[in-house]
Amino acid sequence: MTEKEICELLGRKQYKAIKESFADMNEVDLAELLERLPEKQMIMAFRLIGKEEGAETFSLMEPKQQQILVEALTERELKAVLDEMFLDDTADLLEEMPANVVERILANTDVETRRQLNQLLSYPEDSVGSIMTVEYVDLKPEMTVRDSLEKIRRVGIDSETIYTCYVIRNKKLLGIVTAKALLISDERKTVEEIMESNIISINTHDDQEAAAKLVRKYGLLALPVVDKEGCMVGIVTVDDAMEVMQDETTEDITLMAAIAPSEDSYFGTSVFRHARNRIVWLLILMLSATFTGVIITKYENAFAAIPLLVSFIPMLMDTSGNCGSQSATLIIRGMAIDEIHLKDVIRVVWKEMRVAVLVSTTLAVVNGIRIFVMYGDVRMAVLIGLTLVCTITLAELIGCTLPMLAKKCRLDPAIMAAPLITTCVDAAAILIYFSIATSLFKL
Amino acid sequence: MTEKEICELLGRKQYKAIKESFADMNEVDLAELLERLPEKQMIMAFRLIGKEEGAETFSLMEPKQQQILVEALTERELKAVLDEMFLDDTADLLEEMPANVVERILANTDVETRRQLNQLLSYPEDSVGSIMTVEYVDLKPEMTVRDSLEKIRRVGIDSETIYTCYVIRNKKLLGIVTAKALLISDERKTVEEIMESNIISINTHDDQEAAAKLVRKYGLLALPVVDKEGCMVGIVTVDDAMEVMQDETTEDITLMAAIAPSEDSYFGTSVFRHARNRIVWLLILMLSATFTGVIITKYENAFAAIPLLVSFIPMLMDTSGNCGSQSATLIIRGMAIDEIHLKDVIRVVWKEMRVAVLVSTTLAVVNGIRIFVMYGDVRMAVLIGLTLVCTITLAELIGCTLPMLAKKCRLDPAIMAAPLITTCVDAAAILIYFSIATSLFKL
Repeated sequence: MTEKEICELLGRKQYKAIKESFADMNEVDLAELLERLPEKQMIMAFRLIGKEEGAETFSLMEPKQQQILVEALTERELKAVLDEMFLDDTADLLEEMPANVVERILANTDVETRRQLNQLLSYPEDSVGSIMTVEYVDLKPEMTVRDSLEKIRRVGIDSETIYTCYVIRNKKLLGIVTAKALLISDERKTVEEIMESNIISINTHDDQEAAAKLVRKYGLLALPVVDKEGCMVGIVTVDDAMEVMQDETTEDITLMAAIAPSEDSYFGTSVFRHARNRIVWLLILMLSATFTGVIITKYENAFAAIPLLVSFIPMLMDTSGNCGSQSATLIIRGMAIDEIHLKDVIRVVWKEMRVAVLVSTTLAVVNGIRIFVMYGDVRMAVLIGLTLVCTITLAELIGCTLPMLAKKCRLDPAIMAAPLITTCVDAAAILIYFSIATSLFKL
Repeated sequence: MTEKEICELLGRKQYKAIKESFADMNEVDLAELLERLPEKQMIMAFRLIGKEEGAETFSLMEPKQQQILVEALTERELKAVLDEMFLDDTADLLEEMPANVVERILANTDVETRRQLNQLLSYPEDSVGSIMTVEYVDLKPEMTVRDSLEKIRRVGIDSETIYTCYVIRNKKLLGIVTAKALLISDERKTVEEIMESNIISINTHDDQEAAAKLVRKYGLLALPVVDKEGCMVGIVTVDDAMEVMQDETTEDITLMAAIAPSEDSYFGTSVFRHARNRIVWLLILMLSATFTGVIITKYENAFAAIPLLVSFIPMLMDTSGNCGSQSATLIIRGMAIDEIHLKDVIRVVWKEMRVAVLVSTTLAVVNGIRIFVMYGDVRMAVLIGLTLVCTITLAELIGCTLPMLAKKCRLDPAIMAAPLITTCVDAAAILIYFSIATSLFKL
């Protein structure tokens, strides 16, 4: 159904038709559809969604629309939605809402839920604790497979996943039992007999990206989260891990383009915010680039004598910048997906230096020939060729080492990408270029 | 256990100790450990892994090591591994191995498996068919919940996932039943009664990235794959979807740095291959940059009269390049994660133009003041300010439209990133700069 059809049906009060078509829709699509409706129609349409689907649809909507709904719903409706929501989604909601809305939401949750919400909200941003969910199936080691299946039947509906169950004694995580293991094992066996005791887990205060990486690396459906005392406190599910992976990559990519990362979508970020996110690095880079200008003014005599020298500046700057950013990009991405580690620095430099030799000589020869053909000037061809070899080698060296240096200093390697590398390399390229030029042409 | 310890234990023939410690290890870690061993020790160690874990460990290893193992194992050992492997992993293996190894592998599989393998290998690279798995649980609509659980118990061990079961009649997919639904439903109900008939599926010939996106968007554990006739042929599991997501992002990021993407890891790619992947775009961009040089030579008189003009070239080129690549990066990423669509082009341009006004005036004012303070020259300050406003606005316009144009032409938007945008913007920046300069200074 399109948003137009919904509005029409709402206008003609054909609520039953809408209800029926909503029942066939996936919550993700429902949330997208509702977000495109005008405010009044959205509220009316939301009330026509089934109780269970309503809570999930609500969780999937943008904060702006969530706020409109919270403010429009009656106490009873709001409580119904909150009761069905998973706690991690409620915590996310509270983080986004203004104080008065938060108050209304908290007033509609019971004491125990409020306590758990407070706990969830106390974890630092981007930590595992802030994305974990606390609704999982816990089993005792002495339970039989039959007991366990019975428990899943009872509590399954309120757990985010039933496919990985956690065997716990005195709050400590002893092992993991998958639903698959329960289903294919003899009903009389105990959980302890069939559990996997080699556990991959993560700490509440670790980075959320580390959790996503573990989920991906080991192909997990859920990753158990333990606190400082080693007590099990929650799980990170694979769908949340995928979200984290995508968000972290987006952050890396924007940072690599010298933009301060934004939590919101492109259209969800205001023009003013966009400008602010971009201007800081632009200012830094612009002012840094004036150093290159200062170097040029020192060689005024050189290009006064041979004006042609100036015309090669853009090509030299671009080419060495591109080479540096190629190296930097490969290293940054390699470190992000754990293919390259800090201890590999010598291997990386050795590899990049050999690549630099191949790349720079090819470019130098091609460009040397072009210049000789265009201007018939051997010395100019030699100058450009030599400059290319030196600057490209230097650029690849800077490009591969700066990101690793950043990581060593516990900075995000992604800041050492194209824009910053280019600015560093430019100054070096100009200096090398005019040094060789003045000695070759005896200026 | 470290690789050194393993080698020592192997040397002292303490196989039992190794076997025991292997039994406690995750297959992912086992594969990593084995890959670090010398060839002879790796083969010995592989034989000490349990039968079930052996096949999975083998699937997780690099093609180079897989080949060594296939060549070293006896027929019987090889058959044992292949029998336990999932078909999609076997298909991946066949794609990587040389002809003689492929022959040996096929000789150790039965006729039906060979037929299925042939089918899997016939799908185009990067298509859904090439990553799907054909081992899933299929149910009939008239089966009861009890029958279904019984079937899962029987075939579960050979299926990649049992958590989503597929209801099929005459090869057509009628609905989906989760293990959760089966576990919490009355045992006497039929599958048809509890199945979800609103199905999200994908075609064998669709792009693998589309499958990964659906898995992420709808939070699925597995996505059913149908052929042209609408018959169910396989599934894409969430762990494979995560791999695809990561690989596709890496491809985008390398392409955005003007590098031809490589399937292999950074260290897995040879120096020669690295150079070849980088040089094509470098050559194109280097030769394109000479246009900018040609423009500069046309204004020789201008900078002969005012040499200071040359010193601002790097700053102007870098700043406009950075602005263009910021816009391009946001649009490319936005399109990759489906936040921005082709129909949004007007909204994007309108947003970027307002951002450009804010960004360019800020940079122009800051730089204008700096130049006035440093050189006390109002006209020069005005020149640089005006040039910045014009070039930045143009850069952001080019930066946001070129990626969308690429998508419209069915090219990968990622090629319209920083390097190409910078080269385009450079020529424009130089032209604008000297045009304003010559008219302002009446040169």
